[in-house]
Amino acid sequence: MKFDLDKSYQILERTPSVLRILLSDLHDDWVQGNEGPETFSPYDVIGHLIQGEKTDWRDRATMILEYGTARSFVPFDRFAQVEESKGKSLKQLLDEFEVLRKDSLNWLRLLNLTETDLFKMGMHPDLGEVTLKQLLSTWVAHDLTHIAQVTRVMAKQYKEEIGPWIGYFRILTF
Amino acid sequence: MKFDLDKSYQILERTPSVLRILLSDLHDDWVQGNEGPETFSPYDVIGHLIQGEKTDWRDRATMILEYGTARSFVPFDRFAQVEESKGKSLKQLLDEFEVLRKDSLNWLRLLNLTETDLFKMGMHPDLGEVTLKQLLSTWVAHDLTHIAQVTRVMAKQYKEEIGPWIGYFRILTF
Repeated sequence: MKFDLDKSYQILERTPSVLRILLSDLHDDWVQGNEGPETFSPYDVIGHLIQGEKTDWRDRATMILEYGTARSFVPFDRFAQVEESKGKSLKQLLDEFEVLRKDSLNWLRLLNLTETDLFKMGMHPDLGEVTLKQLLSTWVAHDLTHIAQVTRVMAKQYKEEIGPWIGYFRILTF
Repeated sequence: MKFDLDKSYQILERTPSVLRILLSDLHDDWVQGNEGPETFSPYDVIGHLIQGEKTDWRDRATMILEYGTARSFVPFDRFAQVEESKGKSLKQLLDEFEVLRKDSLNWLRLLNLTETDLFKMGMHPDLGEVTLKQLLSTWVAHDLTHIAQVTRVMAKQYKEEIGPWIGYFRILTF
């Protein structure tokens, strides 16, 4: 599948609602469980997605369009949400993510990106040269893989309880 | 996390809405893409979940409660949906799944399962003795891992487009 801006919007604009339906009013055991030390719970993931809206996607797209490869992106802090989410309820985080995502997409639409823009390059601090198209594709894939992560982490909470069926769940043994 | 009937209902009853929000009105490229031969697209997964409601979870719970280990479960056909979904739109499948799931949960609630019931045993054709509690836990984990699968499969459609970022997405290389 080739990158397409409209098909990308289709995913980016529904992620907040998907996470809201998936996580609202769940018992804390589902929301706070993780996969072990240094791994994300569903609660952590929402905080991480908020950080992405605040400091990653939009800033990097701007860097590409304004500075090209002349300036490297600011490295993204994958654990910034530990501090930033402190004291906030899941509902607050879901609300915050929804508002930020709406803003990001309004901003993105106003750029009226052309095919030429999509091939503009930026400089990733570790990966080197990347195009705007790759950045936007990654934004979409990042949403989807974090929903995959959230549901895998939730499923893992029943890992012991499913007994011999574990043999059929390759995904739970990662 | 220990098995709990109420916490299990929380997941089982929201799965149809989660899949509806995630997949409705998406371009076919998102819905029909899979991970290669003999793998499921998001469209296939909904058909598979429908088959589960029709021939798996409820039938097996009934077998446990009525026959214990005296009769083996009927093996589940993981590819039955290829025929059963033929000619149906994604919307039709999502509607069908929602209705069937609602019925299944109404039925399950009416059983008024006791703690003793949860430890009753049945006979799986391959796995041997399993408890009702393990079956119900598996039902929950099965929902969640299929949502994880759907979103992973969708993310994979952009695997080529994300360029060097692929190095950060372990999940896309499975």
